[in-house]
Amino acid sequence: MHLTGTMKINGFGHLEIGGVDTTKLVEQYKTPLWVIDEACFRENCRVFRNAFQSTGDGLVLYACKALCNTALCKIVAEEGLGLDVVSGGELFTAINAGFPMKKVYFHGNNKSPDELEMAVTFGVGRVVVDNFQELKTLNRICQRLKTKQEILLRITPGVEAHTHEYIKTGQIDSKFGFTLPGGEALTAVQAALACDALELLGLHCHIGSQIFEMQSFAHATELMMDFMAEVFKLTGHEFKELDIGGGFGIYYYPGDKPGNPVEWAEAVSGAVQAKADQFGLKRPRIIAEPGRAIVGPAGITLYTVGAIKEIPGIRKYVAVDGGMTDNPRPALYGSRYLAMVVNKAAQEATEQVSVAGKCCESGDMLIWDAWLAPVEIGDIVAVFATGAYNYAMSSNYNRIPRPAMVLVKDGQSHLILKRETYQDMIRNDLVPEYLK
Amino acid sequence: MHLTGTMKINGFGHLEIGGVDTTKLVEQYKTPLWVIDEACFRENCRVFRNAFQSTGDGLVLYACKALCNTALCKIVAEEGLGLDVVSGGELFTAINAGFPMKKVYFHGNNKSPDELEMAVTFGVGRVVVDNFQELKTLNRICQRLKTKQEILLRITPGVEAHTHEYIKTGQIDSKFGFTLPGGEALTAVQAALACDALELLGLHCHIGSQIFEMQSFAHATELMMDFMAEVFKLTGHEFKELDIGGGFGIYYYPGDKPGNPVEWAEAVSGAVQAKADQFGLKRPRIIAEPGRAIVGPAGITLYTVGAIKEIPGIRKYVAVDGGMTDNPRPALYGSRYLAMVVNKAAQEATEQVSVAGKCCESGDMLIWDAWLAPVEIGDIVAVFATGAYNYAMSSNYNRIPRPAMVLVKDGQSHLILKRETYQDMIRNDLVPEYLK
Repeated sequence: MHLTGTMKINGFGHLEIGGVDTTKLVEQYKTPLWVIDEACFRENCRVFRNAFQSTGDGLVLYACKALCNTALCKIVAEEGLGLDVVSGGELFTAINAGFPMKKVYFHGNNKSPDELEMAVTFGVGRVVVDNFQELKTLNRICQRLKTKQEILLRITPGVEAHTHEYIKTGQIDSKFGFTLPGGEALTAVQAALACDALELLGLHCHIGSQIFEMQSFAHATELMMDFMAEVFKLTGHEFKELDIGGGFGIYYYPGDKPGNPVEWAEAVSGAVQAKADQFGLKRPRIIAEPGRAIVGPAGITLYTVGAIKEIPGIRKYVAVDGGMTDNPRPALYGSRYLAMVVNKAAQEATEQVSVAGKCCESGDMLIWDAWLAPVEIGDIVAVFATGAYNYAMSSNYNRIPRPAMVLVKDGQSHLILKRETYQDMIRNDLVPEYLK
Repeated sequence: MHLTGTMKINGFGHLEIGGVDTTKLVEQYKTPLWVIDEACFRENCRVFRNAFQSTGDGLVLYACKALCNTALCKIVAEEGLGLDVVSGGELFTAINAGFPMKKVYFHGNNKSPDELEMAVTFGVGRVVVDNFQELKTLNRICQRLKTKQEILLRITPGVEAHTHEYIKTGQIDSKFGFTLPGGEALTAVQAALACDALELLGLHCHIGSQIFEMQSFAHATELMMDFMAEVFKLTGHEFKELDIGGGFGIYYYPGDKPGNPVEWAEAVSGAVQAKADQFGLKRPRIIAEPGRAIVGPAGITLYTVGAIKEIPGIRKYVAVDGGMTDNPRPALYGSRYLAMVVNKAAQEATEQVSVAGKCCESGDMLIWDAWLAPVEIGDIVAVFATGAYNYAMSSNYNRIPRPAMVLVKDGQSHLILKRETYQDMIRNDLVPEYLK
């Protein structure tokens, strides 16, 4: 079993995280429960921060979309990282957390005028402009507010990372960004330079998610630097920042081989330096945006087993009290996870079972063919590496309230997200007079 | 274009629904906006209710999981249908709507003891028991509360409906129910008959979703009736109800050929009658559970176009202000939808574009290769047949607030779901003292 961060098997044969026995967490907070290992989360922040700082003045942004929560934003700020937000809601959370706005980068393929105005008003560090309409809208907003906004342009470099179809984003056929091959990116640079209320500080690209090959990042960096050189030659404009996005893969399942953050930073930095030397350019500051790689391995989800169904010769289903509502990734991407019976953590995983969710839908299966210690009703199952894209993508399908989330550290636990109630399920419902 | 219910193109060349110009709805409520056509919703309730009533005393349940909302539950009650709920949250909504509890059926593969106690306490009509653990738990709860609960057993008949992999539920390898082939179902009946606080009233099965072949339902019905006959022969117990579930397909996209509700009812009723005659059984009451078929065609979603990106020779992306957060079905199942530019409803759909969502994820595409009237920024796009499994499965991914929902009828609109706010995105966030 692959135990990350502070996780270990304690003297009671239970899984422990952040110095807290998971069975105690369940007694106190019930299930399903998202648990974030604060030490692991902070350590991951530092590892990426240090890796990119060691390349010069590199800045690491925490990608909110992986998991955005007020308490976690505060930790990210304490650890000296910036923040990558993709909507007014994430921006609002950052504001509410008192996050230093100058270190906030605002992404998105279709930011609304209201979102852009909110970003400018609250002084976000960079707006990463995705398309011509946004360039125009943002320039007008800044003119009206008599301010100047620093921007990056999102470029689609045409690199395909080896990853799942849904999470490829660097190829040409993408809803995101200005396409590099064909010249749209150059047109965008010229348009941005002509916007009097915008300052074109740099370029951004994002080549995919859950990437294990550092060479993909180096290759994208080279393409971006070549383009920076082309722009310099044609316009004399020199870029100060290169945001190479995120997509650094993590370990979910045997076969996943995460890279080393230092190697990521070095691959990018090496490519930047070589190209800067080649073209006689100033070296741009490198920005990197791991989200999943910071919070993913720091999170687990705890569930209670409520029903077991054995179909002789076919399969044993173990149904837990959560599922696609709190973790839609298996249904959405076919993602695979590892699990453990936490109250039998010291026992060998001798039984192959399939972990089903509680939704009234056949596709609500968390894990097909998981190896677990012999499972009984009432056992607590942990699913690993659920820090990223679980809470973030959670729903109330079947009107199932969303779980609570706790932060654990040094033997203490702290609630950072209240469990939803049944009342929450109907709180926005209204009944017209004629139906009362 | 396939306009259902009260939808039509009005004198301004705009799409109208429930007698309201969709562009007026957008002025009043903004986008994205879910719109439910009350007349169409009620008409669909009646068509199914009448179809099954005409077979004798058949009862139609509205399947809440398709779309559960207090106002809609009230309409369902007015139309004389029962309700199929699958969680404490849906049950809570039904209670809040004042729904007649005797007409509520409670489904689910892993109901918690708390949910079961809630169901018994509030007097739901039937608990549809899924597994042995639930049988035991429910019996104990009823003994403790000194009450008797009417139940159905969920049977997995081993029928495969021709439908998408994720939404097949009748095959043997299923997390749901007691398997018929192999004898588990018979064991379950015997166990249920031995429960002194439970009254075994009938059987339930569900063979899939989005089914177009009425023969699938007839075949499942025959298997269930054969089993009822077997039970009668072995135990003398006669069943009073046969709940044949839902799964009645609707029109989303060319190629979808929905059946006729009357033919559905007749196929089931015919099979019931033939088998009852064959075995000399009393004819059980037929229960049917369309959810999608009632609300699906009654709903549309309105979006505003915010960005357009043309990649020469490849594709034109049209980005709207919603996406996988309000409609995860394209990402989850590869579902296809039809769309229209509502403010250009009278114009021909001469342009092929791909409708992208606003989420920071490449997989957030609502429609690939949709035919639309020439699209411009600011246009309003309607996606059709979004009444079912859109709001129900919606998320706050990217911390995007969920849209509002309005009910339209006779030229009037009524808000039945408030739009979420940014404040809602952080309302359950807590910050431990040491992070303040």
